[in-house]
Amino acid sequence: MVRSAAGAARPDEIRRHNLSLVLTHIHRDGALTRAELTQRLGLSRSTVGALVSDLTRLGLVEELVPTGGAGVGRPSHVVGPRRGGPYAVGVDIEVARVTVAAVGLGGDILAREEFDTERGRLTPAALVNHVSAAMRRLRQMAHTEDRPCGIGVSVPGTVDQRTGRIGVAPNLGWREVALGDLLAASVPEVPVAVGNDADLSVYAEHQRGSARGCDDVVFLLGRIGVGAGIIAGGVPLRGRDGHAGEIGHNVLDPAGPPCHCGQRGCVETFIGDAALLARAGREDLPAEGAIASLFADARAGLMPAADVVQAAAEPLGRTLANLLNTLNPSCVVLGGSVGELLDLAGEEVRAHVDRYTFGTAHREVDLVTPGLGHDSALLGAAELAFTSLLADPR
Amino acid sequence: MVRSAAGAARPDEIRRHNLSLVLTHIHRDGALTRAELTQRLGLSRSTVGALVSDLTRLGLVEELVPTGGAGVGRPSHVVGPRRGGPYAVGVDIEVARVTVAAVGLGGDILAREEFDTERGRLTPAALVNHVSAAMRRLRQMAHTEDRPCGIGVSVPGTVDQRTGRIGVAPNLGWREVALGDLLAASVPEVPVAVGNDADLSVYAEHQRGSARGCDDVVFLLGRIGVGAGIIAGGVPLRGRDGHAGEIGHNVLDPAGPPCHCGQRGCVETFIGDAALLARAGREDLPAEGAIASLFADARAGLMPAADVVQAAAEPLGRTLANLLNTLNPSCVVLGGSVGELLDLAGEEVRAHVDRYTFGTAHREVDLVTPGLGHDSALLGAAELAFTSLLADPR
Repeated sequence: MVRSAAGAARPDEIRRHNLSLVLTHIHRDGALTRAELTQRLGLSRSTVGALVSDLTRLGLVEELVPTGGAGVGRPSHVVGPRRGGPYAVGVDIEVARVTVAAVGLGGDILAREEFDTERGRLTPAALVNHVSAAMRRLRQMAHTEDRPCGIGVSVPGTVDQRTGRIGVAPNLGWREVALGDLLAASVPEVPVAVGNDADLSVYAEHQRGSARGCDDVVFLLGRIGVGAGIIAGGVPLRGRDGHAGEIGHNVLDPAGPPCHCGQRGCVETFIGDAALLARAGREDLPAEGAIASLFADARAGLMPAADVVQAAAEPLGRTLANLLNTLNPSCVVLGGSVGELLDLAGEEVRAHVDRYTFGTAHREVDLVTPGLGHDSALLGAAELAFTSLLADPR
Repeated sequence: MVRSAAGAARPDEIRRHNLSLVLTHIHRDGALTRAELTQRLGLSRSTVGALVSDLTRLGLVEELVPTGGAGVGRPSHVVGPRRGGPYAVGVDIEVARVTVAAVGLGGDILAREEFDTERGRLTPAALVNHVSAAMRRLRQMAHTEDRPCGIGVSVPGTVDQRTGRIGVAPNLGWREVALGDLLAASVPEVPVAVGNDADLSVYAEHQRGSARGCDDVVFLLGRIGVGAGIIAGGVPLRGRDGHAGEIGHNVLDPAGPPCHCGQRGCVETFIGDAALLARAGREDLPAEGAIASLFADARAGLMPAADVVQAAAEPLGRTLANLLNTLNPSCVVLGGSVGELLDLAGEEVRAHVDRYTFGTAHREVDLVTPGLGHDSALLGAAELAFTSLLADPR
């Protein structure tokens, strides 16, 4: 029940709030029966019925008879996202690849496009052109005529989410880029939101991935750069400027390898993609295919790839231990290259975590790979784009 | 307005909630006029009047005419904590000293006792005996006959706040100690709560110290051990077990000095009290007086103390940078020895923070010493003891 500051409930505000609740549950958990909605929301059956009718009329949900199932009696209708209904555009900017996807309510990827770029060559203008062109093609592939309800962009750098402005994305070579404004100018009338890749990844994994139901979770994302997204007590931890989790340049060893940031021995110089490739003698290859082939070789037991993976277990374990000591999460999701390292050297990584963690913060902590595979940041970006529709479905 | 799950407001629940609000404001902000209370709480004048009468009848507050001031017309009465009214007992366990204090509603220390111990010699049983003896004397010193409303204890170790059980307090040599139960058995009918020293410090400084009004704050506490207390988005960050902020054994340099925990180069081996004393060649002195005399010498420019302080600026700066990168706070309060280091070598500390912090997380961050001096943990412990009275003043 929503009440205004003065204590009195305003009917239109209550309706907005309740429509938002119903749509958010369906978006997050998929199709639900009216009975399930009634129970979850603590509303009367008739109220839920009216809300579902409203959402149906708005073109957001539809009622379906589930196929399969062996229940007794007439199957319950379920309320699910309308097929061909509203969708968001998610954009995941990696250093050597950009993915653009149309994502439906409920989180299904309806259509996607990827394009590889040369590291350090992607300009904001080229990104904007590519996204608007991709959006036209995605609309056809996804068989929808409507404008998306929003565009969400994942960036490997610091972002002011309020303005969509990028502070610094070092591995893109971007600094002070008003990406939100640039995109909004090229795709008018569609709201644009921009977020940090690790922040969006942890949001998506908490919402519908490996960290569902876990209220203290860290997503450690290892790509060319390394960063963390944090949810503490069920709430995203952003800090004063939204830059929390920028741990890629925490120094692991002051005598370590030189880093592009000017320091020595940063986390990225041990477990970032470029560092792993350099240690395997592959620094000349373009990163996107190279890192996949490094892990394929390691999986096959080939040297030096297998050695490089083993050697990365210690700095990864220490990076994780520092996070566990600081944040005491119940779950850490390791995405990108650090997820591969966990897959390939999980026992060693866990041993180093045990060794370096103080007290009991390592006990029973779940170290897992993303439930959404490579798409955590992409789907987190789409979640960002759904925010205003979910807050006010009218 | 408080409503039950079913939506209907229960009058006694509303009254409890409103009494709690009024008392909490007076406790936190000191004496307030009825007009100020009316404005802050968004309640009617008559409701505030009734609540103040209730709290007066309960012996918790009293109305006073403020002395001084040069306002026009008749001075407003203010509502403040009742002198001689309820008080809490705060206990701050340091490795070489224990402080026990009677703290009034409003946060004033009414009376205190300190006793020094030899490092590693304090047993839980001795602590309990001392606290119950001190409580009898404090009651006389504070001129009050009533039982305290609670006992709060600050511990340099990991604590399960729900049970009052200490996991590990390495510098006390305590492990798996049910301190809450032990104290409760010796002081029957008084509720006992136990918390971690840095967690309690950040709470007290946020409530009534240097970090008032700052919603993203870290308290870095440097004593024999080093730990952090964290408030993020206005809410204490505890993590799964309440062990967040245990950064004293994050490794700053794998080639650094050996640590009692078995690793090398932990934060404590660079900026913990024992490390600072060892570098000054003073490891044989008892810690409590020794660390104060080390800083006094450094302040006077004496060697090697001044050199030791200067040399600690780099590891302290790096420790702070790691926290800024991870949490992006707007304020860091440095208490204990690290506060002395900030006082004596602030420029150098800030230069290292700038150097090691990624992006802009270091810009405009306030690095400050505690507004509550040496008493942040003690007053935080008293806050813990006030919790149930403030939640339900009846």
